[in-house]
Amino acid sequence: MKSPSALIRPLVRAMHAYVPGEQPRIAGLIKLNTNENPYPPSPRVLATVRAAVDERLRLYPNPTAQPLRERLARIHRCTADHVFVGNGSDECLALAVRAFVEPGGSRRGTRVDPRTVVQYFTPSYSLYPVLADTHGAVRNEVPLLPDFSLPGASALRRSSKWRVDAAITLITTPNAPSGRAYATRELDALCRAHRGVMLLDEAYVDFADDHALGLALRYPHVLVARTFSKAYSLCFQRIGYLVGHPALIAALDTIRDSYNVNGLGQIAALAALDSRSYYQANFRRIVRTRTRLSRQLASLGFDVLPSQTNFVLVRPPVFPAEEWLRKLRDRKILVRWFSASEVRQYLRITIGTDAEADALVRAVRQIKRRG
Amino acid sequence: MKSPSALIRPLVRAMHAYVPGEQPRIAGLIKLNTNENPYPPSPRVLATVRAAVDERLRLYPNPTAQPLRERLARIHRCTADHVFVGNGSDECLALAVRAFVEPGGSRRGTRVDPRTVVQYFTPSYSLYPVLADTHGAVRNEVPLLPDFSLPGASALRRSSKWRVDAAITLITTPNAPSGRAYATRELDALCRAHRGVMLLDEAYVDFADDHALGLALRYPHVLVARTFSKAYSLCFQRIGYLVGHPALIAALDTIRDSYNVNGLGQIAALAALDSRSYYQANFRRIVRTRTRLSRQLASLGFDVLPSQTNFVLVRPPVFPAEEWLRKLRDRKILVRWFSASEVRQYLRITIGTDAEADALVRAVRQIKRRG
Repeated sequence: MKSPSALIRPLVRAMHAYVPGEQPRIAGLIKLNTNENPYPPSPRVLATVRAAVDERLRLYPNPTAQPLRERLARIHRCTADHVFVGNGSDECLALAVRAFVEPGGSRRGTRVDPRTVVQYFTPSYSLYPVLADTHGAVRNEVPLLPDFSLPGASALRRSSKWRVDAAITLITTPNAPSGRAYATRELDALCRAHRGVMLLDEAYVDFADDHALGLALRYPHVLVARTFSKAYSLCFQRIGYLVGHPALIAALDTIRDSYNVNGLGQIAALAALDSRSYYQANFRRIVRTRTRLSRQLASLGFDVLPSQTNFVLVRPPVFPAEEWLRKLRDRKILVRWFSASEVRQYLRITIGTDAEADALVRAVRQIKRRG
Repeated sequence: MKSPSALIRPLVRAMHAYVPGEQPRIAGLIKLNTNENPYPPSPRVLATVRAAVDERLRLYPNPTAQPLRERLARIHRCTADHVFVGNGSDECLALAVRAFVEPGGSRRGTRVDPRTVVQYFTPSYSLYPVLADTHGAVRNEVPLLPDFSLPGASALRRSSKWRVDAAITLITTPNAPSGRAYATRELDALCRAHRGVMLLDEAYVDFADDHALGLALRYPHVLVARTFSKAYSLCFQRIGYLVGHPALIAALDTIRDSYNVNGLGQIAALAALDSRSYYQANFRRIVRTRTRLSRQLASLGFDVLPSQTNFVLVRPPVFPAEEWLRKLRDRKILVRWFSASEVRQYLRITIGTDAEADALVRAVRQIKRRG
């Protein structure tokens, strides 16, 4: 009999899973670590989902999330065959890597098969390297400039290790963890300079001034990812989607699980789209809190990066960032710290309610005073 | 610019997706095509899920489904690290193929790399070939005997095209679409004869007299898959799980999406485990209806296979099976027909309520009389 570990693919044995931010359920905890929306879903969403909890749970959900895709298509002025709905945008990203990238790539010196390459900027969503590794693809990590801006298309080509067109390029826009937004014009130029699939991951776009969804409808190799998790307060129910060319969408449909999106999630997302004024008021509130908190932290000696998202990346004074993480946690405030070298001197703080921001500022003052 | 189809992996372009049974929402339709439970979830499940539809939807769900895994571990007398929870058992099966099978296998005459082989019996769950193809694995389809029984381990080795140990063997037990159960003793012998991962897919086991979960706790290469969809009337919420050796479970955990299981689904499954007497009464009712319907159809000239599941496979008289499918559909009764050669002369009929079974029998009598 083989040892159990001999049954596991060497690729999987060697892997490090993505580490999500903590989800502790501690009474009184102020949770500013995973970019959840501080406001609940709209009353309409809650009422609609509650009313749907009935006999229908015994039936399979719509296998193609058809009503939701049709609704999203109307909003984005396209047809349902331009829309793919996934079990969170994480599933959309994972499926895109599996549909468009050949596994089994290996780096042999400076030569690599471009069909095996997953390209992304660092720092950005720390799931991307995990997706590349899980698939057995080759990672091409391209550093953002020191102010977290995008290298231009030609600079990118020079900086890219192999000067090849990656099979897929994943771009978090606005960027996480920096919070920085990229102009649509810049993204457009980047897309035009590439021949592989360009996936613009707009998880935080509802908190930004601009979006690039038009690129997914203009270019056949561009996909835009969106999620109901953050902006629509529906992390619990796992609904994300992609917009792009019907041929790419059909490829994703071919390889997904047959019933990949749970039924109450589909219902919740549809109801959220019926309550957009409620959510837009929330977006404005979060942006106001972001402005206020950024000013307050700056006045306390924090280096605060301008943000177009529902979080701010800040470089704290006096103590190293990792120590701030612990000191804030001792005061029941949870923020996020990443060990990657480009960001280890920063904290990423989710924008909560005004009261949560005030509590954070009070804790920061205490820590500065008493250590 | 590349054509969109040139962006898609040739493997994916060549694929045929799994075709799930229809999910039409037609008023008055009697839906006996996808093996859903005719009875609703327990009142406790409905009340618990309704009460959970609140502010928490804005938060990420428990990323490891920890409370549900602990609860399942207590029931199965093991520890939580023996349990993996997925987005339906379909996700569990897909992840197992990706964790334990090398992609990129190819058949070169009679030689094949065993690490690339997905083995399963035909007919069984028609998703298996799709999972193998999606992953770029090699399929080894082993025919069941004409009465849908399992070939013995040595006969299997002889019948297997390459006489190799597949990286994974998928066994639907009780079998779908035949409804036939396999004795634990038989499955035990089959497991002992193999060195690769043996996945016993017990999607229908709650309607059977016996189960083989003990094998997953006894042998390090055996996994048992279960689902809340059918027996627990929770198809809508996508909860399945695997039980097996902690090393295999950890491998699946490494490659899954970070939040693969929606929150209300986790809550529904936990509440279902608190209402087991409600569900056990349903299982008994379904078994009684199965016995009654089997007798009635037999008396109408149908060849009815003995079933240990919540469906029966029947060979209809007078007209070809595909024609029965249409004639029943015209009378608003939906059953399942598969085009695969071993079963194309059969219909698979889900066991509904007694009233639904009566309506089916009436429709059958009409069709036999009038055509």
